[in-house]
Amino acid sequence: MHILVTNDDGVQAPGLLALAQAMRQIGEVTVVAPDRNWSASGHVKTLERPIRVTETLLADGTTAFMSDGAPSDCVALPLLGFLENKIDLVVSGINPFSNIGHDVTYSGTVTAAMEAVIAGVPGIAFSFASETKPADIPTDYSSAGEMAKRVVQRFVKEGLLEGVVLNVNIPYLSPDDMKGIIITRQGLRVYRDALDRRVDPRGRPYYWIGGEAPTGVNEEGTDVGALAAGYVSITPLQLDLTNYKAMDVLRGWDWEIK
Amino acid sequence: MHILVTNDDGVQAPGLLALAQAMRQIGEVTVVAPDRNWSASGHVKTLERPIRVTETLLADGTTAFMSDGAPSDCVALPLLGFLENKIDLVVSGINPFSNIGHDVTYSGTVTAAMEAVIAGVPGIAFSFASETKPADIPTDYSSAGEMAKRVVQRFVKEGLLEGVVLNVNIPYLSPDDMKGIIITRQGLRVYRDALDRRVDPRGRPYYWIGGEAPTGVNEEGTDVGALAAGYVSITPLQLDLTNYKAMDVLRGWDWEIK
Repeated sequence: MHILVTNDDGVQAPGLLALAQAMRQIGEVTVVAPDRNWSASGHVKTLERPIRVTETLLADGTTAFMSDGAPSDCVALPLLGFLENKIDLVVSGINPFSNIGHDVTYSGTVTAAMEAVIAGVPGIAFSFASETKPADIPTDYSSAGEMAKRVVQRFVKEGLLEGVVLNVNIPYLSPDDMKGIIITRQGLRVYRDALDRRVDPRGRPYYWIGGEAPTGVNEEGTDVGALAAGYVSITPLQLDLTNYKAMDVLRGWDWEIK
Repeated sequence: MHILVTNDDGVQAPGLLALAQAMRQIGEVTVVAPDRNWSASGHVKTLERPIRVTETLLADGTTAFMSDGAPSDCVALPLLGFLENKIDLVVSGINPFSNIGHDVTYSGTVTAAMEAVIAGVPGIAFSFASETKPADIPTDYSSAGEMAKRVVQRFVKEGLLEGVVLNVNIPYLSPDDMKGIIITRQGLRVYRDALDRRVDPRGRPYYWIGGEAPTGVNEEGTDVGALAAGYVSITPLQLDLTNYKAMDVLRGWDWEIK
């Protein structure tokens, strides 16, 4: 089993190392990750410029490829032939903060897993919900790495689901304190962004998206609710965004063109 | 009615001008668009750096705001208070090429409309399927602008749907040659990307995502099929990406954590 590991925080991120180390207990691992942080960068396909890939070392001395492309480019390149060996699974993360609710289209972690699934390879995104405790960005991802290993082992044993992105969020707890694993639906994020208008040293205005950290609607059965209750949340995502209910409503409208 | 017009091709794009002119026939228009091309850039929230906004002129002499943020930032800033007047509708485009099938998460045009809907404001993305004819990027968007006007007029008359992104693709035909409007589901894109390995003047490798233009599975009832048959395609999209069928499958697995 050949597992491609990537992330959106950059090749130096401790969460990437933890995920690579966890995956090495399951199969052969290749790391291809961005050379910088691409958080909240969305689903990118870099077409207008070339992409560089160089070899580097992770903090445990193992080799990794570093690319100046986006997280989804770090998935596309290997799948398009940058790596000779067939890739059986793409895992992305471990993101230091949760990716829940509406985060999924913004998240480089999740869209990297989407890129894999679009190309016909299973993709799993892992995020660590460290923001549920008043902590800085964590450097210890051992409990999240352990849970990622268990999820992938189960996934491999049961058979990889086609066309489905798994969005896994792990609570910021030791494995012993986690309540278990729940299959959830995507919940509702509550963004609390606010526009900060400032003036530069030359008297000209500039703007910064500020405000407070997002919260979520704590509802049972959702990713938000699972994390709040101390569970690992696994949400299966699909690439068909069609709102079938709305189709019926729209078909009832008088759309004559002339 | 106050309509915010944006795009992902940049403030100078002829498709933006056509859309702004079409919307001015319906309500008050404010244009906030990126200062450069963000195609295939996905859903971005710029948090790590400030954003500049300057006033500029479109090719018809009307004013527009130009931002160094992404298309979704050009929606977020006005909705967060950069514009004082309440915004009733956000329209994005007109993209020179179609945004169908799996394009929707990559597309800056579509994710700008998503940004609006996440903030509780209706959002519509417009794309012109010029690639169905062997043409360069079109400069004449008059037929697409006319269709965009008719779609928005209908949308306003029938009542704006909450929580739904409309993804509108317009065939590269004169309005008289268009067959009508069809409500569709998201179809399947067939990407034909290929990795182009090259060597720079210093002998070092670099990579370019090349290959051929994507096609699609021409299936009735889909965006792909509608365009191929000469119809305007309207696909309602939702922000809940949960794969509910896969939830049942995953719940049948043995997920015990210990």
